[in-house]
Amino acid sequence: MTKKLQILIIGHNDSGCTSEHERIAYETGFEIAKADAILLTGGLGGVMKASSKGAHDAGGLTVGIIPQDDSSFANKYCDVVIPSGMGLTRDFLNALSADGIIIIGGGSGTLSEICAAYMHRKPMVAIRGTGGAAEQFIDGYVDHRKNIKIIGVESPKQAVQKILKIITA
Amino acid sequence: MTKKLQILIIGHNDSGCTSEHERIAYETGFEIAKADAILLTGGLGGVMKASSKGAHDAGGLTVGIIPQDDSSFANKYCDVVIPSGMGLTRDFLNALSADGIIIIGGGSGTLSEICAAYMHRKPMVAIRGTGGAAEQFIDGYVDHRKNIKIIGVESPKQAVQKILKIITA
Amino acid sequence: MTKKLQILIIGHNDSGCTSEHERIAYETGFEIAKADAILLTGGLGGVMKASSKGAHDAGGLTVGIIPQDDSSFANKYCDVVIPSGMGLTRDFLNALSADGIIIIGGGSGTLSEICAAYMHRKPMVAIRGTGGAAEQFIDGYVDHRKNIKIIGVESPKQAVQKILKIITA
Amino acid sequence: MTKKLQILIIGHNDSGCTSEHERIAYETGFEIAKADAILLTGGLGGVMKASSKGAHDAGGLTVGIIPQDDSSFANKYCDVVIPSGMGLTRDFLNALSADGIIIIGGGSGTLSEICAAYMHRKPMVAIRGTGGAAEQFIDGYVDHRKNIKIIGVESPKQAVQKILKIITA
Repeated sequence: MTKKLQILIIGHNDSGCTSEHERIAYETGFEIAKADAILLTGGLGGVMKASSKGAHDAGGLTVGIIPQDDSSFANKYCDVVIPSGMGLTRDFLNALSADGIIIIGGGSGTLSEICAAYMHRKPMVAIRGTGGAAEQFIDGYVDHRKNIKIIGVESPKQAVQKILKIITA
Repeated sequence: MTKKLQILIIGHNDSGCTSEHERIAYETGFEIAKADAILLTGGLGGVMKASSKGAHDAGGLTVGIIPQDDSSFANKYCDVVIPSGMGLTRDFLNALSADGIIIIGGGSGTLSEICAAYMHRKPMVAIRGTGGAAEQFIDGYVDHRKNIKIIGVESPKQAVQKILKIITA
Repeated sequence: MTKKLQILIIGHNDSGCTSEHERIAYETGFEIAKADAILLTGGLGGVMKASSKGAHDAGGLTVGIIPQDDSSFANKYCDVVIPSGMGLTRDFLNALSADGIIIIGGGSGTLSEICAAYMHRKPMVAIRGTGGAAEQFIDGYVDHRKNIKIIGVESPKQAVQKILKIITA
Repeated sequence: MTKKLQILIIGHNDSGCTSEHERIAYETGFEIAKADAILLTGGLGGVMKASSKGAHDAGGLTVGIIPQDDSSFANKYCDVVIPSGMGLTRDFLNALSADGIIIIGGGSGTLSEICAAYMHRKPMVAIRGTGGAAEQFIDGYVDHRKNIKIIGVESPKQAVQKILKIITA
């Protein structure tokens, strides 16, 4: 009995999420499920919803940790819902619950999750070309302490391969 | 695609947990999995561990929300681990994440979860004869507001049947 | 430079709070300020508001940790407001922030704070005759572990004297 | 009776904090107290400690919200201590509790607070020349939503004048 890995996808919520972000998120979720890992997201819209749909379509397990205190706010592709009741503070819960993180675009919320993950030394990869928070510190460090380098990758498939490789190294 | 119900079992942690509590917890977890619901627990020892083992043995899905910020503290029967990093404050997360709650004995931690659940009007059943927090308010209310009656039940099987019946009523 | 003690008053919120509860809360807040301690409350109505007014009238400092994410929800007698954005989960923050706790009546929210305080071994006194959570475990223990005995006292003045004596012992 | 404003100073903790950062933080804390506002910090070392000492020396009130669950971890210049027991997740509590924020250098922790503040639309000023997180988004926005512009200022005195002006506008 081996515990499956929990991979967190973060990125654009409904605000600023393009159909290209959604396509990438869907494929990344799909690849995570194919790799037999658990997909973890913030459980709402945009990249969170598209990736959960992808994982779902590949027969995977999806978990959503949402800001609200009522699970009905989660998107319908979350198998497990944690309604934190903590508002956006739940961004830290997401980061803590991840064995590794894949970044697809994103704004200030995504950046707060990156910072939380960085402080807790969680492996992170960012998909190139997705802009926003994903490319803010790509191939570099969030601060002077150089905890964890954010590795740039080219595609959903490479993102999943790379993050699994780092975690299991 | 229907979201599976999330049933939280709370009760004695390692402190004060007898082999009888463990047997009851195991059977309750087993029944939850058989009913195709997700078992949610605090992810540590005692009733949390025994019930997770039960659900696991019945092929169910188990989630553990733990106080620590490192998932390695969870018992090995948790399929999904949320390392909250919030200490015992995570008791509220457990309650919020539950569609319904089954109480098996328990001390002050269990009682804090009962209070959290009560304030958020979550259905609760308590297994008779398990003592402690389970029987503190059995067949009654936690306070004057009479939010939710804590229903006494006779066995693990009845606990699961009853809580599912209340939730889906 | 000695850090002033932080005394938490918990009890009835607007629901169930009688004018007698308010009078007792006011006097207890007043006595805390006179003893040069900081009054900490949940920052809302009922016992929280009355005790804050009392401390305020005696020239003391008051802190309110509230469930909402906006400080405007606090009662007007809070000098410092911590808008936790965590909902009722903030009950644990209150307990953690206290050097000692005085209980005046109270329902399920108060009881959750008592449990949190008990698990963190915080000294507690309960004012007799105020009912509810204050008298649930008075002169006894919340659970089998016997962490901290909840000491019954007769009056606001005695409550403050007793809790300060226990803390500084 | 007017509620005093709560100004949060964020920036370098012990890691990377130079004597120049400390001098600036001290002066900023001093100015906050002179302006009769409450100083709020994360309650630990570096900029948090130096600013609290400054506010203290000017006779002001200081509040520290710390990651630990024990108030003894706070620096000795905190008049009020909130031991959150939430680890670094407390960064969000800091941001929520602020009427306005002054940034002095800082790393990933500071950046997480900036993101939290940005999402909650809290006014922010950053002191030029202090590097790190303070200058990451100076005179600009954290993301595409343009919630709140982070205003660059030249000195501690100007920082306090500016943030108070924005808040009370």
